[in-house]
Amino acid sequence: MNLDASPAIPCDTLVTASGILTQNARREVIRDGAVAISGGRIAAVGSRAELATAYAPAETLAMGQALVLPGLVNAHAHAAMTLFRGLADDLPIADWLHNHIWPVERLLTPEAVHLGALAACAEMLACGTTCFADLYFFADQTARAADTLGMRAVVGEGVLDFPTPSAKTPAEALDISRALFDHLRSHPRLSAMVVAHSPYAASDATLAACAALAREQDAVFTLHAAEGVTENADSLKKTGKRVIPHLHSLGILGKNCLLAHCVHVDDTDLDLLAATGTNVAHCPRSNAKLASGTAPIPAMLQRGLAVALGTDGAASNNALNLFAEMGFASLGHKLASGDPTSFPARAALDAATLGGAACLGLPDIGAIVPGHHADLAVLSLTRPSMVPFFDAPSQLVYAASGAEVVLTMVAGRVVYRDGRFPNLDAAALFREVRDMAASLAAKRP
Amino acid sequence: MNLDASPAIPCDTLVTASGILTQNARREVIRDGAVAISGGRIAAVGSRAELATAYAPAETLAMGQALVLPGLVNAHAHAAMTLFRGLADDLPIADWLHNHIWPVERLLTPEAVHLGALAACAEMLACGTTCFADLYFFADQTARAADTLGMRAVVGEGVLDFPTPSAKTPAEALDISRALFDHLRSHPRLSAMVVAHSPYAASDATLAACAALAREQDAVFTLHAAEGVTENADSLKKTGKRVIPHLHSLGILGKNCLLAHCVHVDDTDLDLLAATGTNVAHCPRSNAKLASGTAPIPAMLQRGLAVALGTDGAASNNALNLFAEMGFASLGHKLASGDPTSFPARAALDAATLGGAACLGLPDIGAIVPGHHADLAVLSLTRPSMVPFFDAPSQLVYAASGAEVVLTMVAGRVVYRDGRFPNLDAAALFREVRDMAASLAAKRP
Repeated sequence: MNLDASPAIPCDTLVTASGILTQNARREVIRDGAVAISGGRIAAVGSRAELATAYAPAETLAMGQALVLPGLVNAHAHAAMTLFRGLADDLPIADWLHNHIWPVERLLTPEAVHLGALAACAEMLACGTTCFADLYFFADQTARAADTLGMRAVVGEGVLDFPTPSAKTPAEALDISRALFDHLRSHPRLSAMVVAHSPYAASDATLAACAALAREQDAVFTLHAAEGVTENADSLKKTGKRVIPHLHSLGILGKNCLLAHCVHVDDTDLDLLAATGTNVAHCPRSNAKLASGTAPIPAMLQRGLAVALGTDGAASNNALNLFAEMGFASLGHKLASGDPTSFPARAALDAATLGGAACLGLPDIGAIVPGHHADLAVLSLTRPSMVPFFDAPSQLVYAASGAEVVLTMVAGRVVYRDGRFPNLDAAALFREVRDMAASLAAKRP
Repeated sequence: MNLDASPAIPCDTLVTASGILTQNARREVIRDGAVAISGGRIAAVGSRAELATAYAPAETLAMGQALVLPGLVNAHAHAAMTLFRGLADDLPIADWLHNHIWPVERLLTPEAVHLGALAACAEMLACGTTCFADLYFFADQTARAADTLGMRAVVGEGVLDFPTPSAKTPAEALDISRALFDHLRSHPRLSAMVVAHSPYAASDATLAACAALAREQDAVFTLHAAEGVTENADSLKKTGKRVIPHLHSLGILGKNCLLAHCVHVDDTDLDLLAATGTNVAHCPRSNAKLASGTAPIPAMLQRGLAVALGTDGAASNNALNLFAEMGFASLGHKLASGDPTSFPARAALDAATLGGAACLGLPDIGAIVPGHHADLAVLSLTRPSMVPFFDAPSQLVYAASGAEVVLTMVAGRVVYRDGRFPNLDAAALFREVRDMAASLAAKRP
């Protein structure tokens, strides 16, 4: 008995595994590691031997041959659109939107959004996503779904100049937004953001009102920008400026601004984004499926922009799986540039973790370091795709499908394990979701 | 009691499920369907109610809420390269090949190839691939691995003008090829093909000898062609012709010829491929990861070419998962063409099933129709990514990750079910594979 030994420090949970991918500043991967968790936050990260001695956990999760990584961050989602997964694919974007998506969206109810968002949260948790940013209608219902499943989320109510399922006017949508801020102010895992659909679906006055609300609330303001092939030409005609300079002239660009897509941006646009510290949510699979193009992400990273990954909605992806997104991003940029070094696995992994945290203004997620929220994903390394295992980023980005995730934790609580969700009867939910999706599809005009 | 009822027909197995994706000529999807299997072949396909009355199965596999599809066909693989998964990524192709892959390949032994191929077969079966075409060294060891795991495979020994791990000269490699044909001639699931590496790694004389052997054996002759960005320029310098016309001048193109990649082909090349009935194995993820480019597959399909999908090896992909390949193909062609209708989900699914069958000269696989081999994959529709379910091809290509596969059957035998392989201690194998991979990597010069 070592009489010099300090007494062990109590903690809630000790997670041990053959590897911990920290995503800390030195991008350390700790072999035979452990994470000590207390009060929903990471108390310590280190070798299993050290932490097992230093800590006295109430519970130990011994994950064996597994890799623990920071929970992934989905920076651009429309969770409830899971109801429309596979409803209309392989179509030109105008046909898809005007004849399929918008008609069925008009039928949405709070209950439909709640069901769709529950299914989306289940899908995201099952492949290691612990936090998402959601832009949609009846945003309180998406918040409710994330809350039920124990996820972290930043939700916003879409503001547009034309009627939405939840608001007849932009003023009404802004009122809903304001109420959302009040409703979520003291929530430990949920927060609100301001959402304008896009510069083409919101007037300058509406955009300015949104920006003012975001400043007032010190919140993220997010919108779609420069996604489609005609947006810059349309903007030039309407405003005399391309999309990005137009947004800049309205005082919208800046550190609290998160632009989704930014596919069609030129060097001047990129310089403006960099000078203002504007953030970008990159949705490569959605951009490919709608044939929008490839956003110049390597050029953005060279300029120091914060870039996150997003799945967009299940109607244009059709999966809410950041492993698929990381893989597609890394392979897609190699194709677009003709340079196999242009977007290495490490860059994709950074975007899905640290980039998401930076873009959503959540500095306490995206890495496994002391003080951060205990938002973790655990991948089994006993699946065929994980054998052999030379390099963690390469394995996660090029070989993993997301199905290797065996446990997901948010704020220290296990919210997914081996196909099950503690707070959800998934089979019953999926029956309701299938029925709701079929009923909405049948009612389409 | 209905005295008119015919007595039920005995069969080995009846598989029932909520959906059967037949890939028959009318691309029927049968709701509440069943497949009756006898002697390793499909005896009947139809509604569950009809087949349950008509057949008296020795065993029933009641798969419930699930989709049965034809086992997927991987038309271009280097299974044993699974040993090098993640060993060297994000590098220019010359650096990758010369400084990483070739040096470690020189260390390969029959035992290493056997282990790598076993791991590859396990990975493929776990995501619904029932048949693969393999081009590598010590090809008999790949055949042995496929046999152990009960897969269907067409294997070939690589013939090159420089020494390989298994053969000092092309003549020796051709002798090995001949022996492989003799060895596999009467095998129910395995067969041999002729493999020349490529027109840049095999002289005209070597290519002609390979073509002669393929004709003699009435077998597929496969090689890499027009993959890299410099191949046509190099070929013009050396032969005065681009790659495809050069192969044509040697009499190699034709219905038994399967060219892998064909990324850099122009209209004249495409016309030659079409006129000769040459087949193409499309490896979109490998082509992207090595920044080779996007093969003009939509143009090939317009000309009536048979196109299959291939994963290539795990060193350049890094997954052996045809779901990832179908998704990347469909999204990638939309990006490359700017047209979201250019390569619909249906085309990707056809390539991974019927296209594979056509390219490998195996007319009895790729569809669930009476008389075909009972090679099936069963996907659970109770996973989050499968809810809701509007359209089968869209769901398989855009939403599925491959992890939804719960059962894989080859020639009527269950060879994978719920994470387990009947003939394999996967944990023990993966330990050996990790050790072998680490040992080869450590011995690299």
